[in-house]
Amino acid sequence: MMNRLVYFFGEKGKESKQLLGGKGSNLGEMTKIGLPVPPGFTISTQVCLDFLEKNHCPRGLEKEIDDNIKKLEKKAKRSLGDEEHPLLVSVRSGAPVSMPGMMDSVLNLGLNDKTVKGLEKESNDSRFVWDSYRRLIQMFGDVVLGVEHSKFERVLEKYKKGRKDTDLSADELKSIVDEYRGIISEDGKDFPQDPRKQLNMTIKAVFNSWNNKRARIYRKLNNIPETTGTAVNVQVMVFGNLGWDSGTGVGFTRNPSTGENEPYGEYLLNAQGEDVVAGIRTPKQIKELKKDMPKVYEDLMKVYKVLDRHYRDMQDFEFTIEKGNLFILQTRRGKRTAQSAVKIAVDMVGERLIKKSMAIMRIDPDQIDQLLHKQLDPKEKGKARKIAKGLPASPGAAVGIATFSAERAEELSEKKNVILVRNETSPEDIQGMAVSQGILTARGGMTSHAAVVGRGMGRCCVVGCENMSIDEKRRKFAVDGIVVKEGDWITLDGGTGEVFLGELAVTDPELRGEFNTLMEWADDFRKLGVRANADTPKDSKRARDFGAEGIGLARTEHMFFEEERIRAVREMIIAEDEEGRKKALKKLLPIQKKDFIGIFKEMNGLPVTIRLLDPPLHEFLPKEDDEIKSIAKDMGIDFDEMRTKINSLSEFNPMLGFRGCRLGVVYPEITEMQTEAIISAAIEVNKHGGEALPEIEIPVLSDVREALVLKRVIKKKIREITEKSKVKVKCKIGTMIELPRACITAHKIAKEMDFLSFGTNDLTQTTYGFSRDDAGKFIPAYVEKGILENDPFQVLDREGVGFLMKICIEQARKSNPDIEIGICGEHGGEKSSIEFCHLAGLDYVSCSPFRVPVARLAAAQAKIKNG
Amino acid sequence: MMNRLVYFFGEKGKESKQLLGGKGSNLGEMTKIGLPVPPGFTISTQVCLDFLEKNHCPRGLEKEIDDNIKKLEKKAKRSLGDEEHPLLVSVRSGAPVSMPGMMDSVLNLGLNDKTVKGLEKESNDSRFVWDSYRRLIQMFGDVVLGVEHSKFERVLEKYKKGRKDTDLSADELKSIVDEYRGIISEDGKDFPQDPRKQLNMTIKAVFNSWNNKRARIYRKLNNIPETTGTAVNVQVMVFGNLGWDSGTGVGFTRNPSTGENEPYGEYLLNAQGEDVVAGIRTPKQIKELKKDMPKVYEDLMKVYKVLDRHYRDMQDFEFTIEKGNLFILQTRRGKRTAQSAVKIAVDMVGERLIKKSMAIMRIDPDQIDQLLHKQLDPKEKGKARKIAKGLPASPGAAVGIATFSAERAEELSEKKNVILVRNETSPEDIQGMAVSQGILTARGGMTSHAAVVGRGMGRCCVVGCENMSIDEKRRKFAVDGIVVKEGDWITLDGGTGEVFLGELAVTDPELRGEFNTLMEWADDFRKLGVRANADTPKDSKRARDFGAEGIGLARTEHMFFEEERIRAVREMIIAEDEEGRKKALKKLLPIQKKDFIGIFKEMNGLPVTIRLLDPPLHEFLPKEDDEIKSIAKDMGIDFDEMRTKINSLSEFNPMLGFRGCRLGVVYPEITEMQTEAIISAAIEVNKHGGEALPEIEIPVLSDVREALVLKRVIKKKIREITEKSKVKVKCKIGTMIELPRACITAHKIAKEMDFLSFGTNDLTQTTYGFSRDDAGKFIPAYVEKGILENDPFQVLDREGVGFLMKICIEQARKSNPDIEIGICGEHGGEKSSIEFCHLAGLDYVSCSPFRVPVARLAAAQAKIKNG
Repeated sequence: MMNRLVYFFGEKGKESKQLLGGKGSNLGEMTKIGLPVPPGFTISTQVCLDFLEKNHCPRGLEKEIDDNIKKLEKKAKRSLGDEEHPLLVSVRSGAPVSMPGMMDSVLNLGLNDKTVKGLEKESNDSRFVWDSYRRLIQMFGDVVLGVEHSKFERVLEKYKKGRKDTDLSADELKSIVDEYRGIISEDGKDFPQDPRKQLNMTIKAVFNSWNNKRARIYRKLNNIPETTGTAVNVQVMVFGNLGWDSGTGVGFTRNPSTGENEPYGEYLLNAQGEDVVAGIRTPKQIKELKKDMPKVYEDLMKVYKVLDRHYRDMQDFEFTIEKGNLFILQTRRGKRTAQSAVKIAVDMVGERLIKKSMAIMRIDPDQIDQLLHKQLDPKEKGKARKIAKGLPASPGAAVGIATFSAERAEELSEKKNVILVRNETSPEDIQGMAVSQGILTARGGMTSHAAVVGRGMGRCCVVGCENMSIDEKRRKFAVDGIVVKEGDWITLDGGTGEVFLGELAVTDPELRGEFNTLMEWADDFRKLGVRANADTPKDSKRARDFGAEGIGLARTEHMFFEEERIRAVREMIIAEDEEGRKKALKKLLPIQKKDFIGIFKEMNGLPVTIRLLDPPLHEFLPKEDDEIKSIAKDMGIDFDEMRTKINSLSEFNPMLGFRGCRLGVVYPEITEMQTEAIISAAIEVNKHGGEALPEIEIPVLSDVREALVLKRVIKKKIREITEKSKVKVKCKIGTMIELPRACITAHKIAKEMDFLSFGTNDLTQTTYGFSRDDAGKFIPAYVEKGILENDPFQVLDREGVGFLMKICIEQARKSNPDIEIGICGEHGGEKSSIEFCHLAGLDYVSCSPFRVPVARLAAAQAKIKNG
Repeated sequence: MMNRLVYFFGEKGKESKQLLGGKGSNLGEMTKIGLPVPPGFTISTQVCLDFLEKNHCPRGLEKEIDDNIKKLEKKAKRSLGDEEHPLLVSVRSGAPVSMPGMMDSVLNLGLNDKTVKGLEKESNDSRFVWDSYRRLIQMFGDVVLGVEHSKFERVLEKYKKGRKDTDLSADELKSIVDEYRGIISEDGKDFPQDPRKQLNMTIKAVFNSWNNKRARIYRKLNNIPETTGTAVNVQVMVFGNLGWDSGTGVGFTRNPSTGENEPYGEYLLNAQGEDVVAGIRTPKQIKELKKDMPKVYEDLMKVYKVLDRHYRDMQDFEFTIEKGNLFILQTRRGKRTAQSAVKIAVDMVGERLIKKSMAIMRIDPDQIDQLLHKQLDPKEKGKARKIAKGLPASPGAAVGIATFSAERAEELSEKKNVILVRNETSPEDIQGMAVSQGILTARGGMTSHAAVVGRGMGRCCVVGCENMSIDEKRRKFAVDGIVVKEGDWITLDGGTGEVFLGELAVTDPELRGEFNTLMEWADDFRKLGVRANADTPKDSKRARDFGAEGIGLARTEHMFFEEERIRAVREMIIAEDEEGRKKALKKLLPIQKKDFIGIFKEMNGLPVTIRLLDPPLHEFLPKEDDEIKSIAKDMGIDFDEMRTKINSLSEFNPMLGFRGCRLGVVYPEITEMQTEAIISAAIEVNKHGGEALPEIEIPVLSDVREALVLKRVIKKKIREITEKSKVKVKCKIGTMIELPRACITAHKIAKEMDFLSFGTNDLTQTTYGFSRDDAGKFIPAYVEKGILENDPFQVLDREGVGFLMKICIEQARKSNPDIEIGICGEHGGEKSSIEFCHLAGLDYVSCSPFRVPVARLAAAQAKIKNG
């Protein structure tokens, strides 16, 4: 038995989106619930797919359309092609996922040389009728017959002579119609007079428009499947341009910008739908309609309420008033700002329209990010000069003068806001990054040093602006022929990756009450813990304010770069023997201890995971001869000797080099110093009534025996110190899991450790064999060619990296059921990755402080979605 | 029930090595088969372990020793402590694994102030008896009582006054005995007169010597387990120094140097065992004994034959002649050269002593390597000045003048043999390496560039001589205060990593008939195929001569570095667009095609796996400004532009960067050119009656979609060319498996590919997170601290890397049962890794040409051992 191909409005409702498209199913739904929708019918998406496959319409379609037209004629009390009361219809596309403006429509279908005259008589408005006919021929010529659009436009321009469309007289319009038909004949084509033929041809044209180039690109860009096809809606025309008792408008059932529960919208009298969008006349605020048309206003207010309550969500709808009668032509879920989305969701729970879980599911975690950072005023952006576009590495907006070195950034930041512009950043730039409003780099990807540190600091950051050519020495950059020098103002949009010339206005973030309510609900639902990656007391405080339940990753090396410290660090590295290293480490001990005291105080009562020194030592050493000279002199070491030492430390692949626990295994004195700093800091805090909960973390593990060697060193030091001080410190010892071999041998590792924490940045690097600092050269091509669905450094690769994580978790829990397992890679703040972490049964995710609310929400959604 | 603690010789035989140690079980065995062994008994290793754990001997030991002493006394017709016919015994250690000279012994035990006189009377040889007593007190004082050795030596020197031991008179020896006892008393100790007490104390001392420092170090260095303990052998003393009808000697049942089946050995008349070893007098060849003592010689010849036949292996034994009576004191498996090992094994099969499988198992594959390379004369080494020691990266010997750059090596090699000395080598040095006899580097490990290429070329290579400080610009290196300049002669031993000053003599390799026989047998047994890694026709020929059944890896990039080619390669890299790249690639096409024709001809009828371009492009570009300038000029490109391009290609972690199939995905024109070169070369060969079997291999795969993209490009090109030429070419398409993600997703990859080949170098790098070029900084410490048992770049890590390989193999075979799976990493030539490959069910291993015989043998052993 053949399925139904066509449905009259009201036969099916919003549940039929897949079959009838978004527009068709909502027109059906509104018809069903008694809203004033002009009658019509929908040809299903299945017909479209069938047609596209076989290039002809399925049998039976003709008949079903005929039946529905009869119904339509009966409702409208007009007939297709009737010379006295002709029926005019619109033919519009409508796919399951909205693709606004991407496919074709034809309006006023049903007009021909005879019906146009009947209508003229009936309406008594020749100008309107001939304008409608002119529009039909133009649209049909373009969309259905494929005549070049510009040919019609040229004729129209000729008649308008600079006047508006509406200034054309009926006679002029008649001449235009004649010329239009001439154009079509010249093209060897014919405008059909039979309205039924018009309709058939238009339906096919709409189907074909599913595959036009712009639609295909749009689907690709928006990840819309190719396999749904579009429905076609045939609907009785209503006209908002039949006089001052007619009009057209757009309504939002709540304020899409603020979320306030108030009718919001705009309208124009004596106008057609496209006029509101086109902005030819300035529309009026919806409340003014109360004066213009009190009765219609009252009807409209009912529609607002019905739609909002019926859909239990804010709706964006279109209406037309035809001679004092209100018609609703479309409704859909209203787009909204993050702030509005949160308020609406929370309010609707209060109004008992939705449940808390639904409120939580309504908010896109990525959108929340908007609420936590300064934003550019969109209007300002439109006016400003955009000079480049990179990757949006860390959100927010930044306005400042360009500076080209960390030192200059520090100097200039005392007087003005600065933006640090570099080819790429390195750990030496940390101070410069901290004093800057934003960071802009020419190289690097979403997980480059600049991006990671930027996000960690909550600094707006745009990276990988490949078109920029930066001359750091001469303090300038060039892009597209524009040269920006030190001191010139630039503005970054970290949410889009755009770079603007000049000083744009920004708006401050506002954390409203509804936001906090939503977060509390999310906390009730989620199973995953949420911690933050933070290296300083300041970041720790921010993390706690944002709801972090601990520090999941404190990187000790970031503390090493400040002025007084870096000297001692370098001394340690240059030292020839253990004694020399110990001497230098002794200088670092009180500094590190002080850092930890600050963090422990801020995180009082919450766990703080501190990672032992991780990066290759050469990262701390100077690279240029000048610098080496000056430091060699400082340290009283021969320049050549110093350079030789530095060269001997340089590595081919530092990511896979002498780093992480390898440092501690070869130089246990480093681990001893760090343990001492951590434990004595905890003692200091605990002595004064605080509760420090340090967790010492071993990085870059490949084998349990590395952990055993370091655990012995750490435990010995802890015993030594706590026995002396007689203050108890609870301290867990655990390890990062960031290498495939650690995942594979997790059963052995877990037996010896209190916790594991996935470092998925490095795990992704080693699993894929991609260096995140170099992958910018091919990842874009990979995404474009469909080899990668996403950048795996942004969205966790469940198939590869996830497989190793699952092996690890399963084995670890089997051999040590009490073990705590978290994640502290960049993925810990990304929604799809957080869902994976929930499914994989992790205990917590840890992310940069600014991503903590995102993670809280995403974790709740993962639980609600997957149980 | 308590286990037996002590066994009389002959109660158990050679099967009891674990319980009675090597020496004890063989003494038992020889007693069993009726050889003239002085009677004795063995205290088991179990007693030693018990004693070391509890610090006292197990109950019942005393009694068992007493019983065995009674038996001994009966056999020897002498009694312990008997004043007329005293029994003298030796007490010797003997562990399950031989540790020569590492633990203690005491001889002549049983002498005291009374028995010494009885023996004097009995033997009528005062000098001999008092010398024996002097020796006992000295050994006992040192070994059992812990008196400092040098104190005794000083007294002895005083009496000797420059004369030999044997020149001391009986009276002098008596005075020495007195002084010795004085030394012991001064130390607050006492030499016990009771022989039974002497025995008990000595047994404990021998047990304790298991844990002395040099024994512990020896075990660590030789991978001998700590848990076996040592047995103690108590045996009736026999004396070879009782006059000219006595003597002592060492025998080998076959020639340990050549393997000839002839009695081999040395002896000294009127001497004790240690005199032969100490080299005080020059020993005589064994055949001379026929004249000296015809009867004893006849007996000895019987012993030779019995031992050789009974043990079915060449034995190394010690004998003593006491007053015309022959005694055998020890036998063990004889150490032998590689050449001798092969000849003995093959001969013994011919003599029906062993089976072919046992002959194969007898040869250590590593030893075979010796047969394929030039060797240093060991005598010459002893005399030469050793200046450094690095890692033995590629075996053989090399003698030449030091050169410090590839260019100079090429120049100077025209007149003299050269050795290339570099901090490390890079692909640009290939030509220089090819013209050198050997390669010496200060940095890098066993799988550094120099090591891999050196092994591939069969060049002797010593790497990672960390003590050397090389000044490449000034063409010299310094080590330990010695400076070696360009032109100075040096000699490398690639088998040991030693570096000598001067020009040492070398011996040529000799591939004897027995070697080929053994290889043929190995081929009959093995299941694994053996291919070679070779990039040139010359290497291919060598590989085939060594028995390779195909090329498992031909690296196309090695072909890119020759003079005329590198220019075109650089042009391609510098090109701004596809058109520019294609132009440059067109120049490379005929060159590559020619290379492939040469290889296909050499490998006619055998498969040749050709890997597509693999290394990051920047490896082909110059690094120094001078070079860049000259090349920029050559190519007519602006210097700054050239440098910018080069900089933009540089990478943080090239190993994880823009390389492998990523190059082909982004620049398909490279893959097209290479495919065209391969296929048109195959057509050329096939047209002239040859059979080229190319297999195109995609490197560095992380996802099946990369393979699909490149497979499409390759297939299209193949179709294009073969349709035009109308010559058929069979060509497989496959991929390297060198990243964890490729292993994990092998089920998808295998479906699309004809073959997989494990690149275990890179797979080890990514699984462990170790950069093989940088790991030299910590791998030695890791091995030393017991974190790693072996360098995982030398011996395949079964637990981590092997786990991923197994997942891959299992999934791949499930989804594509016909798929061919091999390995082409360095591990393909290492015996333990080859065993793993056999167990994992690979189809073949591929290794450097010089390792092919090693692999053939190791593959046969894996099959014999594991079935």
